[in-house]
Amino acid sequence: MKILPDILQNLIQEMKKLPGVGGKSSTRLAFYLLESSPEQRERLTKALQAVDKIHWCLRCFFVAEDELCEICKDMARDGSLLCIVEKPADVIAIEKAGRYVGRYHVLHGLLSPLEGVRPEDLKIPALLKRVEEEKPGEIIFALSPTLEGEMTLQYLTEQLKKSESKLSRLARGVPFGANLEFTDEMTMSKAFEGRQPL
Amino acid sequence: MKILPDILQNLIQEMKKLPGVGGKSSTRLAFYLLESSPEQRERLTKALQAVDKIHWCLRCFFVAEDELCEICKDMARDGSLLCIVEKPADVIAIEKAGRYVGRYHVLHGLLSPLEGVRPEDLKIPALLKRVEEEKPGEIIFALSPTLEGEMTLQYLTEQLKKSESKLSRLARGVPFGANLEFTDEMTMSKAFEGRQPL
Repeated sequence: MKILPDILQNLIQEMKKLPGVGGKSSTRLAFYLLESSPEQRERLTKALQAVDKIHWCLRCFFVAEDELCEICKDMARDGSLLCIVEKPADVIAIEKAGRYVGRYHVLHGLLSPLEGVRPEDLKIPALLKRVEEEKPGEIIFALSPTLEGEMTLQYLTEQLKKSESKLSRLARGVPFGANLEFTDEMTMSKAFEGRQPL
Repeated sequence: MKILPDILQNLIQEMKKLPGVGGKSSTRLAFYLLESSPEQRERLTKALQAVDKIHWCLRCFFVAEDELCEICKDMARDGSLLCIVEKPADVIAIEKAGRYVGRYHVLHGLLSPLEGVRPEDLKIPALLKRVEEEKPGEIIFALSPTLEGEMTLQYLTEQLKKSESKLSRLARGVPFGANLEFTDEMTMSKAFEGRQPL
């Protein structure tokens, strides 16, 4: 039996589309919004509408309000280092670690023959052109070590091997804080391969 | 260092206000919304704006699009049963169980001397008036067995003892599917008190 107004049912449906929001939490979120003040809902609505003004940086395809993003505009960044990532959120994760001082190139996806994602569907043509123009000293691949990540890495190293840039990838190994007992075989074997002298 | 556009930072802040959304998931939600289509964002925005049209049922204070909610409009409901709940979401939880066929009264909160919540801040005056007018055969309290819930229950039973309605409360006991070993002392002792003959 239908007991909720269509309007509320509709909000629950929209909430359910958000990542990590299931049936119960979509109802909870909808009721929370219903019981919050009209002002608070308007702030959220306005914040959502403003997103239309954000676009991708013309150079690295990270998020930007202007033509270039804050990272590309920052002259203190080391332009000889170029880090290749899958998505904008990866840039945030790397920046949080605070270890990397170079620039980025966001692919906006990974190659996937299964899902029909080809190089021209990603920011790969732009990357190849950029490398040719900027000639970075080192290109660091920071792609997830998944099937698609490895495939994309392989394709790009093939395409870029003629460039003069040094190519590298993030180290694979046992993550900080992990329990060795529960480390999977693949991670364990990569950690042995990449073992470091003391 | 600021690397995100203010617009995105603002959306992350708004997302963080939602219940159950922490620092990491607010960023994740904001990026998800950023990467979703303008049409999908507009659907969500519209759904949020439409919430302004929802109000509380004039009779039971559950959510309603018209003057009365779907439950109050439903003539097949047993008008001799009145169930008192704290918030609209509790009605949904009870309806999902499908066992109750009567009507509701939503208090929109619980009494709390600590937070300064008095009877007149809740839908308690309306409840007392309603009971006088409708004279339900039974009033069932379905309030959370917390300090505030018990205090509200105590206040209301005191106020309603002059009415001709039978007063009852939901059974307290070991929840379905629970592991007896990890049941807390309070629940366990209530379960013994309320033990049922076989």
